[in-house]
Amino acid sequence: MAAKEKGLEDLFLATLKDVYYAEKQILRALPKMAKAAESDELRQAFEKHRAETEGHVERLEEVFEAIGKKAQGKTCEAIQGIIDEGKEIMEDFAESEALDAGLIAAAQAVEHYEISRYGTLRTWAQELGLTEAAGLLEQTLAEEKKTDQALSELAEARVNQKAA
Amino acid sequence: MAAKEKGLEDLFLATLKDVYYAEKQILRALPKMAKAAESDELRQAFEKHRAETEGHVERLEEVFEAIGKKAQGKTCEAIQGIIDEGKEIMEDFAESEALDAGLIAAAQAVEHYEISRYGTLRTWAQELGLTEAAGLLEQTLAEEKKTDQALSELAEARVNQKAA
Repeated sequence: MAAKEKGLEDLFLATLKDVYYAEKQILRALPKMAKAAESDELRQAFEKHRAETEGHVERLEEVFEAIGKKAQGKTCEAIQGIIDEGKEIMEDFAESEALDAGLIAAAQAVEHYEISRYGTLRTWAQELGLTEAAGLLEQTLAEEKKTDQALSELAEARVNQKAA
Repeated sequence: MAAKEKGLEDLFLATLKDVYYAEKQILRALPKMAKAAESDELRQAFEKHRAETEGHVERLEEVFEAIGKKAQGKTCEAIQGIIDEGKEIMEDFAESEALDAGLIAAAQAVEHYEISRYGTLRTWAQELGLTEAAGLLEQTLAEEKKTDQALSELAEARVNQKAA
């Protein structure tokens, strides 16, 4: 299809494939981050988010179904770059007292990528009149925002702990 | 330096270099996005954000100075991936009616990356007792959030325009 003939529906599908790929990469990265975490709270936060991420993958499959398309990923260079930076932190700060701070930062970069993508997809679903899809995307968006908030609280708890 | 001897100060500096590199890449990408934008509002939003980004680069240089380090970038794979995805959208949806929607989405992915990084750096600066740096980082964080909000409003205006 020529670029000029493409419409929002094509952009929606392309971005849906992008985030589907991203979620699957995140699913693979989270156990490694949980294993690397030094504090119990952070390890538990990553384990909890892993379970949630499984739900996000299933919800995306429902969105594909709702628009009559096959669930399919498309290489997402953005999430690859974000995850690679996280791996670099895990290596460069292994056994360092700053490791958990670095893991939280890496996870928040992932969350923010997802927040931007789900926010965009939800708005486009509304524009396209895809009510069911918009509702599903909104649910995941709310969960990603909550995870980001929980990670911010863990980061701030570290600061307060040091100050005490 | 062995990984285990590294501390939060090293992590702060590494991440500062990461975002310094990222801002410079964004500075190069924004004129291309402005040129590609179809609506005047979006072009103006990108031009305004370009001017702001110049200020963010200068503010980062002040942070480097405040901690007595040379301003220096460090390749940031995350922003490269995010910008590459934006370029792909510009190519795949050139002259398409969905181009502006794609440009807004790409810009919001960039904003969210920056929001996560500046939020992290601000919290670490507080933890390290770097009051001046924390204040500078907080200012940019607030501007990035405002830009993301403005982009969300442009995206929603498109939806309402269609509905009218």
